[in-house]
Amino acid sequence: MNKYKGYLIDLDGTMYRGTERIDAGQRLVERLNAAGIPYIFVTNNSSRRPDQVAEKLRDMGINALEENVMTTSMATAKYIKKTYGDAAVYVIGEEGLREAVEAEGLSLSEEEADVVVMGIDRKITYEKLAKACLFVRSGAAFLSTNGDKAIPTERGMLPGNGSLTAVVQVSTGQDPLFIGKPEAVIMEQALQALGTDKKETLMIGDNYDTDILAGIRAGLDTLMVFTGVSTREELAEKGNQPVWKADSLDEWSVEKGEVQRD
Amino acid sequence: MNKYKGYLIDLDGTMYRGTERIDAGQRLVERLNAAGIPYIFVTNNSSRRPDQVAEKLRDMGINALEENVMTTSMATAKYIKKTYGDAAVYVIGEEGLREAVEAEGLSLSEEEADVVVMGIDRKITYEKLAKACLFVRSGAAFLSTNGDKAIPTERGMLPGNGSLTAVVQVSTGQDPLFIGKPEAVIMEQALQALGTDKKETLMIGDNYDTDILAGIRAGLDTLMVFTGVSTREELAEKGNQPVWKADSLDEWSVEKGEVQRD
Repeated sequence: MNKYKGYLIDLDGTMYRGTERIDAGQRLVERLNAAGIPYIFVTNNSSRRPDQVAEKLRDMGINALEENVMTTSMATAKYIKKTYGDAAVYVIGEEGLREAVEAEGLSLSEEEADVVVMGIDRKITYEKLAKACLFVRSGAAFLSTNGDKAIPTERGMLPGNGSLTAVVQVSTGQDPLFIGKPEAVIMEQALQALGTDKKETLMIGDNYDTDILAGIRAGLDTLMVFTGVSTREELAEKGNQPVWKADSLDEWSVEKGEVQRD
Repeated sequence: MNKYKGYLIDLDGTMYRGTERIDAGQRLVERLNAAGIPYIFVTNNSSRRPDQVAEKLRDMGINALEENVMTTSMATAKYIKKTYGDAAVYVIGEEGLREAVEAEGLSLSEEEADVVVMGIDRKITYEKLAKACLFVRSGAAFLSTNGDKAIPTERGMLPGNGSLTAVVQVSTGQDPLFIGKPEAVIMEQALQALGTDKKETLMIGDNYDTDILAGIRAGLDTLMVFTGVSTREELAEKGNQPVWKADSLDEWSVEKGEVQRD
């Protein structure tokens, strides 16, 4: 019997670093497939569509279909649909967010907005930010796909969506509802899509402040892997600790549901 | 004998609202000229050159030359020159800031930076913000012309430089040194240019959180006029109060240095 019946798995720092595959991640997914255990990749990257994310994983030799992916854009769009019905949505963001909003049958609007949503937008302009501020000041709900302050790139740490969102947040004095990890909304959506009970689901990730906190807050057991952002030293200073820690996902036994070292 | 020997005067909300002159402001400047009292207009608007600001005032029939103007861009550039010498400066901002930096003999640089300075930039791009983050993370000093969170326009309150600056501030975790009102730097520069002793200088403005706080912090007597942003009701909730309050600058006696009502 496998201890955990479902897995939620982070991508960057856990399955790959940028364009480089983390081999132990790929091998874990193979073991999950062999055991017939369902898994969903949960990502705060709002810029790409789920089919693009799955394709990137397959190109790396990692078994993934569109239904194995939950992006923060998908979670945001589903949340809007559920909470606000057929709202007019003003979007700052890239393809992944726009298409997710449209996929839920919501209307994108530049002229009026019941909801303003911000995702990473590398074509950000003052006019886009100005419109968002005007809509939020007029009473539109204010959402943001994720609060990541910086994103790692070959050039160094560049502005993340959390820092772009700060423009509207600071200017209007309104705090947005963040959807992505470590917040609750994306985890609820991912659990629902996975279909397993939270008591039997494991959250795996490399970033304490997003992945592990998200798992802890959602009531999941967590496995932290030191192949990405957070180090053992940083982890030691945190309050709530993950249930499991590993230097590599090769240490994880799918069957026993525990870290094993040779 | 005139009680105050020099005046520092705010512009928007005090001398004009947008493109509309506040007549009582113009009449005060006439009385200062008749009495031979020096004055400098102190503005947090970094986007225009001082000669452009003076021209706008003259077009409104208000007596102003370039030497009667201290913009936050000028104060920023002078501060950089004094503090960092011949630094390489990476500028996000509009014409007023770029020209002020060049006017101090500093070199604008896109490739390396000892100092990063941000002013309002309505042609902001992700790449500009990315570069600022990389330079600040590499150890460049981080300055911002002013912390205004929103700017009033015909369309409503649009993002001010303080909210654009928040992108780099949040992303890097580094707080900038703000130069404009209510901070000390612009007031020191304006007092130096005016040449009067702070004990004999009056600061006039409509915005408690910028103009009046700047005056109080700089050790000046302050005159608050209710023709712009702040109301008497808002003022009542503030700790440090201005020395003088007026509904119109027509109430101000230049000779007696006090508010007079008929």
